[in-house]
Amino acid sequence: MPAIDVCLSPDLIHLYKLEGKIVVVVDVFRATSCMTTAIAHGVKEIIPVATVEECKALQATGLKAGAERDAKKLEGFELDNSPFTYMDPSLVGTTIAVTTTNGTLAITKSTAAHQILVGSFLNIGAICDYLRKEQKDVIVHCAGWKGKPNVEDTLFAGAVAAILDEFEVVDDSALLAKTQYNQYKNNLMDLVSHSAHVKRLANLGIQKDIAFCLEHSTYTAIPVWEKDRLVAL
Amino acid sequence: MPAIDVCLSPDLIHLYKLEGKIVVVVDVFRATSCMTTAIAHGVKEIIPVATVEECKALQATGLKAGAERDAKKLEGFELDNSPFTYMDPSLVGTTIAVTTTNGTLAITKSTAAHQILVGSFLNIGAICDYLRKEQKDVIVHCAGWKGKPNVEDTLFAGAVAAILDEFEVVDDSALLAKTQYNQYKNNLMDLVSHSAHVKRLANLGIQKDIAFCLEHSTYTAIPVWEKDRLVAL
Repeated sequence: MPAIDVCLSPDLIHLYKLEGKIVVVVDVFRATSCMTTAIAHGVKEIIPVATVEECKALQATGLKAGAERDAKKLEGFELDNSPFTYMDPSLVGTTIAVTTTNGTLAITKSTAAHQILVGSFLNIGAICDYLRKEQKDVIVHCAGWKGKPNVEDTLFAGAVAAILDEFEVVDDSALLAKTQYNQYKNNLMDLVSHSAHVKRLANLGIQKDIAFCLEHSTYTAIPVWEKDRLVAL
Repeated sequence: MPAIDVCLSPDLIHLYKLEGKIVVVVDVFRATSCMTTAIAHGVKEIIPVATVEECKALQATGLKAGAERDAKKLEGFELDNSPFTYMDPSLVGTTIAVTTTNGTLAITKSTAAHQILVGSFLNIGAICDYLRKEQKDVIVHCAGWKGKPNVEDTLFAGAVAAILDEFEVVDDSALLAKTQYNQYKNNLMDLVSHSAHVKRLANLGIQKDIAFCLEHSTYTAIPVWEKDRLVAL
């Protein structure tokens, strides 16, 4: 039986052997929820970059681009960090560039893996169906917040471990995430409403985003890493 | 009201501001349980060192010494990593040297703090009484296992947060630890028996140690860091 492990932060990913494994990167609020939504709504390619400068350079080549720092959209970019932005029909078939505080870092730190998928509650059913079909060892790589673990990504990791219940739980981070998810699965908001991120964002008026990002399996699209960008699997 | 935060691994401690705070270092299985037991049974000083070589050098000066790697005692040392070893009356009033895989690292990475206490379930009541009296911000620093979070230290951190319920929970690691503890507080062994460490140690015959290390408030002694060693608070 394949194994599932969980890395609670990009600052711990150096402790994990990624070779030969499928890594699922998650940043529930909101980078990977946006990426899932974008690919589901017909965006052709997403180029995630580490810095605002790289993002600006890609924008200068004609791409629409989005830059977020500390959960806020930066000036001078078309796209923000709300999943609803990525439902825009004018984005269908286009290539976009994005940079975010945590999510893009988790992707770029996972490139030693056999395959990198982008996960969120919005595509969790499709992700788990795919992982079950592939029968490879899995690591859920939580983007966290500036290096620290967070509640929402941990709950997603736990949900994957709970759904793939026949996979072997390798280590304590996966065990902690799985038991945490099982405790709160009928009311994720119960825990999430006490999380640092939701408290941090209380004044940004994104309650609608938060609720949307916790919906299960709204989409079947799975963004997958190919060389330097995300495309539909 | 003071705040409580939790660092799930020494590999994340660089993300925390320790200045002015009290850090409680915990390595339930078994380094800080041994240290608590030793100080409670009259050991005068414990010198924790990072390497086996340093430990040997201190042993050569006439100290009794213990070295553990991967949960196993190393050859040529008097002391092992079982709390029962430290109840030996011949250790009363002596200075001992120890090196362990995780616990000593967590201590030496906490020295920027206002004060470092050594915690375990064995002295958790005394630790919390002291923290409540001091009214300073607290960080529970979990030793984990080779850089990764583990179940037993996370449960201890959550127990401290639950007991100090009036302290502000700063961040998601503390929230995760606290909810995890509250879920399992009536049967810690329920979760701990599935942990990587207990599975790892299944063949070492240390069930007695495991059970002892999960006992609450057997002792009131608190080891505290002074310059380069632990003494009774």
